[in-house]
Amino acid sequence: MTFGTLHGVGLGPGAPDLITLRAARLIKGARVIAYPALAGGDSLARSIAADLIPQEAGEIVLDVPMSTARAPAQAAYDTGAARIAAHLQAGRDVVYLCEGDPFFYGSFMYVFARLAPRFAVAVVPGVTSVTACAALARRPLVARNERLEVLPGPLPDDQLAARIAGADSVAIMKVGRHMARIRAVVANLGLTERAVYVERATLAGEVVLPLADAPDVAPYFSMILITKGADPWL
Amino acid sequence: MTFGTLHGVGLGPGAPDLITLRAARLIKGARVIAYPALAGGDSLARSIAADLIPQEAGEIVLDVPMSTARAPAQAAYDTGAARIAAHLQAGRDVVYLCEGDPFFYGSFMYVFARLAPRFAVAVVPGVTSVTACAALARRPLVARNERLEVLPGPLPDDQLAARIAGADSVAIMKVGRHMARIRAVVANLGLTERAVYVERATLAGEVVLPLADAPDVAPYFSMILITKGADPWL
Repeated sequence: MTFGTLHGVGLGPGAPDLITLRAARLIKGARVIAYPALAGGDSLARSIAADLIPQEAGEIVLDVPMSTARAPAQAAYDTGAARIAAHLQAGRDVVYLCEGDPFFYGSFMYVFARLAPRFAVAVVPGVTSVTACAALARRPLVARNERLEVLPGPLPDDQLAARIAGADSVAIMKVGRHMARIRAVVANLGLTERAVYVERATLAGEVVLPLADAPDVAPYFSMILITKGADPWL
Repeated sequence: MTFGTLHGVGLGPGAPDLITLRAARLIKGARVIAYPALAGGDSLARSIAADLIPQEAGEIVLDVPMSTARAPAQAAYDTGAARIAAHLQAGRDVVYLCEGDPFFYGSFMYVFARLAPRFAVAVVPGVTSVTACAALARRPLVARNERLEVLPGPLPDDQLAARIAGADSVAIMKVGRHMARIRAVVANLGLTERAVYVERATLAGEVVLPLADAPDVAPYFSMILITKGADPWL
């Protein structure tokens, strides 16, 4: 018997119509879907794809702990991968739903590492939150020979400052409780005027604000964009 | 009379089914489309969207010179923007087709700068070549607190080296005739084994090779990915 294929499908930043045609076709045809959920809570991935999921599809939920500790997350991905593997071994394809892009801070990376050595895996790229936030904030990111830096907010101040200083445009992800600290770093670099804060891009209740007006504690799905360049050759 | 809206639509990396549902809907409903073409040549943007473009849609071609000189490109975008503006003023929406994402090295940035002050503009983000190449090369890019750097190949050696050394993952765009030089920089950093070369990702004739085996002169649509991190927590 032939094993099934695992499809790691990027869903884009949140709006259901920012799913790609390929991803939509795979989800609509799925016999088994899998997706991460915050332990005991909702799954953003499932909610983005909800209108496309066949009623009769089997569902595998990976309960991923929100902590940054390694062991509980490892265990969640080990368990989820084993459940997915059982379907693949029985010849059934599995469609793994992943917010954004599977290989850009996506939970699919952990599943991929566990199953790609043994099974056929296809990865469908998705729209990332970086370009979705830029579109929403109306901020061209990079042109010609400009450099883009993508940084996680938890980085220490000195690293943040050095890397912001050296790039033409910067996307700071995972702002959350680091907002006040990041805002001070940006201010020290004299870049507050070039910075914009985006929360829940393309989802209901999306927010775009100058960085100066952003809340002191941001939700997990928030980003700061700093654009210095992108000269439009007017 | 109400002016039309300009839609800047990202088409993704090249495969027609990596267009988003939103972009597909806008293209299918378009009365006027606009797109860049290499002066006197074909338009990759138009070819990606070809199956969705209504037969009766008007078409505006922006003949963009391939040179890096400023004045000829300025003139092409000035002319194109004026032709688009005439439709918007007459109340007709215009859908501008852009490879990849409109604000990520996209030609739409130049049109946006010229028309956004006067007209309603909506930007539809697209899948970038960065995550498409990662998917094709099966290379997870960034996880947790890792940093991604996007660099253009024409950057000088010392800048390339410093920025590659400081990031967890690197995408080097626009490799073209800089290949031999970039390959030497990567080798000096001891990162050749972590580097992969991708050409024409998701298009017919796509190529994925270890960097050591890449051709000495690459086409414009090519990329080098270097991934050091993305530890999958096995």
